[in-house]
Amino acid sequence: MSDRPNTPLLDQVTRPADLKQLSDAQLTQLATELRSETVSAVSETGGHLGAGLGVVELTVALHAVFDTPRDKLIWDVSHQCYPHKILTERRDRIRTLRMKDGLSGFTKRSESPYDPFGAAHSSTSISAALGFAVARDLGGNVPEGLGDAIAVIGDGSMSAGMAFEAMNNAGHLKKRLIVILNDNEMSIAPPVGALSSYLSRLYAEEPFQEFKAAAKGAVSLLPEPFREGAKRAKEMLKGMAVGGTMFEELGFSYLGPIDGHDMDQLLPVLRTVKARATGPILIHVLTKKGKGYAPAERAMDKGHATAKFDMVTGKQHKAPSNAPSYTSVFGNALVEQAARDDKVVAVTAAMPDGTGLNLFAERYPSRCFDVGIAEQHGVTFCAALAAGGMKPFCTMYSTFLQRGYDQVVHDVAIQRLPVRFAIDRAGLVGADGSTHAGSFDIAFMANLPGMVVMAAADEADLVHMVATAVAHDEGPIAFRYPRGEGVGVDLPEQGVPLEIGKGRTIQSGARVALLSFGTRLSEVQKAAEALTAKGITPTIADARFAKPLDRDMILQLAKDHEALITIEEGAVGGFGSHVAQLLADEGVFDTGLKYRSMVLPDTFIDQANPADMYRVAGMSAEQIEAKVLDVLGVATIGEKRA
Amino acid sequence: MSDRPNTPLLDQVTRPADLKQLSDAQLTQLATELRSETVSAVSETGGHLGAGLGVVELTVALHAVFDTPRDKLIWDVSHQCYPHKILTERRDRIRTLRMKDGLSGFTKRSESPYDPFGAAHSSTSISAALGFAVARDLGGNVPEGLGDAIAVIGDGSMSAGMAFEAMNNAGHLKKRLIVILNDNEMSIAPPVGALSSYLSRLYAEEPFQEFKAAAKGAVSLLPEPFREGAKRAKEMLKGMAVGGTMFEELGFSYLGPIDGHDMDQLLPVLRTVKARATGPILIHVLTKKGKGYAPAERAMDKGHATAKFDMVTGKQHKAPSNAPSYTSVFGNALVEQAARDDKVVAVTAAMPDGTGLNLFAERYPSRCFDVGIAEQHGVTFCAALAAGGMKPFCTMYSTFLQRGYDQVVHDVAIQRLPVRFAIDRAGLVGADGSTHAGSFDIAFMANLPGMVVMAAADEADLVHMVATAVAHDEGPIAFRYPRGEGVGVDLPEQGVPLEIGKGRTIQSGARVALLSFGTRLSEVQKAAEALTAKGITPTIADARFAKPLDRDMILQLAKDHEALITIEEGAVGGFGSHVAQLLADEGVFDTGLKYRSMVLPDTFIDQANPADMYRVAGMSAEQIEAKVLDVLGVATIGEKRA
Repeated sequence: MSDRPNTPLLDQVTRPADLKQLSDAQLTQLATELRSETVSAVSETGGHLGAGLGVVELTVALHAVFDTPRDKLIWDVSHQCYPHKILTERRDRIRTLRMKDGLSGFTKRSESPYDPFGAAHSSTSISAALGFAVARDLGGNVPEGLGDAIAVIGDGSMSAGMAFEAMNNAGHLKKRLIVILNDNEMSIAPPVGALSSYLSRLYAEEPFQEFKAAAKGAVSLLPEPFREGAKRAKEMLKGMAVGGTMFEELGFSYLGPIDGHDMDQLLPVLRTVKARATGPILIHVLTKKGKGYAPAERAMDKGHATAKFDMVTGKQHKAPSNAPSYTSVFGNALVEQAARDDKVVAVTAAMPDGTGLNLFAERYPSRCFDVGIAEQHGVTFCAALAAGGMKPFCTMYSTFLQRGYDQVVHDVAIQRLPVRFAIDRAGLVGADGSTHAGSFDIAFMANLPGMVVMAAADEADLVHMVATAVAHDEGPIAFRYPRGEGVGVDLPEQGVPLEIGKGRTIQSGARVALLSFGTRLSEVQKAAEALTAKGITPTIADARFAKPLDRDMILQLAKDHEALITIEEGAVGGFGSHVAQLLADEGVFDTGLKYRSMVLPDTFIDQANPADMYRVAGMSAEQIEAKVLDVLGVATIGEKRA
Repeated sequence: MSDRPNTPLLDQVTRPADLKQLSDAQLTQLATELRSETVSAVSETGGHLGAGLGVVELTVALHAVFDTPRDKLIWDVSHQCYPHKILTERRDRIRTLRMKDGLSGFTKRSESPYDPFGAAHSSTSISAALGFAVARDLGGNVPEGLGDAIAVIGDGSMSAGMAFEAMNNAGHLKKRLIVILNDNEMSIAPPVGALSSYLSRLYAEEPFQEFKAAAKGAVSLLPEPFREGAKRAKEMLKGMAVGGTMFEELGFSYLGPIDGHDMDQLLPVLRTVKARATGPILIHVLTKKGKGYAPAERAMDKGHATAKFDMVTGKQHKAPSNAPSYTSVFGNALVEQAARDDKVVAVTAAMPDGTGLNLFAERYPSRCFDVGIAEQHGVTFCAALAAGGMKPFCTMYSTFLQRGYDQVVHDVAIQRLPVRFAIDRAGLVGADGSTHAGSFDIAFMANLPGMVVMAAADEADLVHMVATAVAHDEGPIAFRYPRGEGVGVDLPEQGVPLEIGKGRTIQSGARVALLSFGTRLSEVQKAAEALTAKGITPTIADARFAKPLDRDMILQLAKDHEALITIEEGAVGGFGSHVAQLLADEGVFDTGLKYRSMVLPDTFIDQANPADMYRVAGMSAEQIEAKVLDVLGVATIGEKRA
């Protein structure tokens, strides 16, 4: 507690309504305290730091001006929501961020009425805000009421097609709707000159919907800091032809850019917008990621995501790593393959680091494509690269591949184009919780005709699967692997293509066969050890392929054992369902087989460390063991039924 | 044959290379003949007419100027590809369009090297073209070679986020790439004045990448028809501040708009672009859907899709309809519900007619939202409408819902928001073929925690499912129904909410239980009649719910019968897989059950009428009957094993 910052003003604030009593100067002071509190909290919990620090002033200003939770404040992606959580009745739990039973690292409807719409995947906020705006105008009833709808979206998120779709629709519907473009990397170039777009239109007497009423004598109505800018813009207009912005072409009024760390700009602009906006308006706010905390500002990634750290030095307390991560094993294996095959190219949707493609991009910059937050485009782009004779690796997290699902079906699978899907973050992912779980890819990929679907049981197999994918040119192929470290096996010097549709037997036993698909294999092995100690030595097999299935191996396992249990890090409909389909088709159930399929349960599992999450899912070694004992009808005193 | 138009020039053209010998005047004449041939062919086959007629001149001009198949010509959606097919070695089969074993109604890689990228879902063409352009520059090898990449995309398709993502990426990569915006509805407003954007930039000496070399003395280099326009634009520029277009902000050069029916504009523009383009360029072409065929031009939908028709009068030969379509039953049922509940709203992604929401929109225009081709946004918009207290019906074809899958998971299911998914075109769809099949929705919806998934067995049940969806406010719910006519049952005056998770027994029998999910029920009933005649009276049940399953009913069916066979219009991973999971979990297989799951086979099924397609899938009444006999071990002389 001695490290806790001094926050006298913040200590008086529990909820946004408390801000209404504060002067502008006090709000500025409050922002400073909120920044300190955010840094202090994240130093204890780890998490996303830079994004939150970039919106401290914006968070204070929005809550001071608008009336949340009646007004719906929707944070895009929402990893920048920690300051928001501190201000909205959750300061007392802010040091449980991303922990089991703690606060989510994202906004979450079930957590607070101040989180009207949860987020974690990017670019949903404008669609959500528009939905609230329309519901408001149609008389929708919710306990908190329906006021303004405000989306806060980063420049990166704005690049996703979904955001464009929402802008396009919002511009058409013309509802009052506020979009705050939080531009923290300047990746969308500001128009020439501050305020030029807004003001040039205002003074050119072109239609400017929101502020039309204010057009006459607008300079005097404008908040103080704008007046000088207005004059300058007016003068500039005479000398040059400046155009509308993309946002205006989509039917939004555009206002900005303004300094997102200057409360003297934020407060009056937001107040004016609140008082006068009648249609969709975009406020372009410039911020600095990591603002106000030197170690974050200095960092390359502006303190994007961090482990627990020392507040003074910024030094992170990372647990020492035992084995390389699956992600880095993938990245290195791809680099190695690419060295021998110049047709290997790779595509990421704005996740070069998270997917390990940074390694590839360093070595082969011209063969690595970061398409932005654009999974739909990314998948089809890969399809055409394949049609053009390349060997594209479409490298995405399982949860984000959901964004490109139709393209996987329509552009890749139907055309049998050899796109290689490297699916990272398969299964449960830990602190990011349910929104980032990779639970559904086995099911949604394996039922596509012609798709090959693999899962790596360990990091060595992952290396071989990369080689398998390079070699497989007959159609699409996918391989999945989890977040986190491998199991510590030796890595092969070079990947060797696996035979398509062939699994491997890990150990031969009797009575029960445990058929694993993916990295539960190590838990299966632990369970088998415990079972062996009890006199039951299970057969263990690694399926490697959910599609095509190793029919011979599976039918033989069924034939040779009293019980067959599949296990996978995915929901029903995936590997186990394909195995059941095979067994049914072949009439294996006709005469009886103790068949079980261990899949993720029918619930979204909240954040915790992955081991805890798999325990919630009933998939720990102990639970696998218990399942075997239960199926075999062996007394299981003192053991939980899985 | 006597109706066939006189096409002397077209008769000499088999492939695009033949166009190289023709003068511009002859190409103009060829376009006229191609239009006649297109109308004549579609009058015999039915199909998409208006779109093809709108691009006749563009098709001729593109093939005359570019070198297909080396140059990759990619038609977005590709229902406008009939004239293209006629010019590319497929005229001899053009009267088999959309028929079994005939030409696909869309471009298809397996059909012709002139179709480098198949399409049917919209907005993929720019991504595809970019992939080819990058493959070209990286040395990709394909038999036809890799030249220019040209996407032809409609203004509607351009509204999809995916097209925006592709433009954004293409603008960044700066590869030579040609996008032709086929603007046939003026839904994207042209910039002020013809050619203004292109020319204003050229003369303002702002950077204009592609034509920079031509900037000096550009008027003289410009194709003849531009010169006058250039002068006018230059004059206009002095008087007003015109801006760049959205496309230019995305890094494209913009050229247009030009008259897409005037070969004297099309040919020189395309030749200039071919000779000089160095980066991404967008050519804005104005066309008229249905152009040149009076009945199509007069029609409200410009002859979008048509049955066979009389060429002179345009009168369509539609088969008389026996029962109302599922689509119209849905539309009417929703109107009826909306009359009693003012919170009911509906969202379509550019398919008001196809989904039956036109009926709803007529009655409740302020409660019906056509969001454009924007499924991602559409789903999340619905999620927020639900969060705002409304009862949104997200009404999409099964195949297009794939576009919004991540939003279903992340924004709807995780938040348990009561969005009602009305999933039209479930199962196999007929003439539109594999790209439009609704094969995967049961699997990808039913494994989402908290999702309720229903399928209507007939049109009366569909009415009840609409009522069920309105009443179900605890979380998301989906119901699916096929393309085409209902089975002819009486419709209830008013829908009555079904009990969630309860199926119904249709008839009681012995030995085998047939458990149907969806509209295969009528085939199941036919099969049961045939079986009864052979002394086997099956039990028939309609599951109604894939999730939650009617556990009691299913376990009882398993208990009471020697065999249990599920049947559904979907791929493995769906209803049957959930049933298998239940039976396995409950130990039903331990002691033996003849369980079979009839699902769509592991192949994409080409177009035919739906009955034929289901025969290919092994799901006709005869094949269900054969399956039962096979499972029961009854001699099946003369019957095919399913």
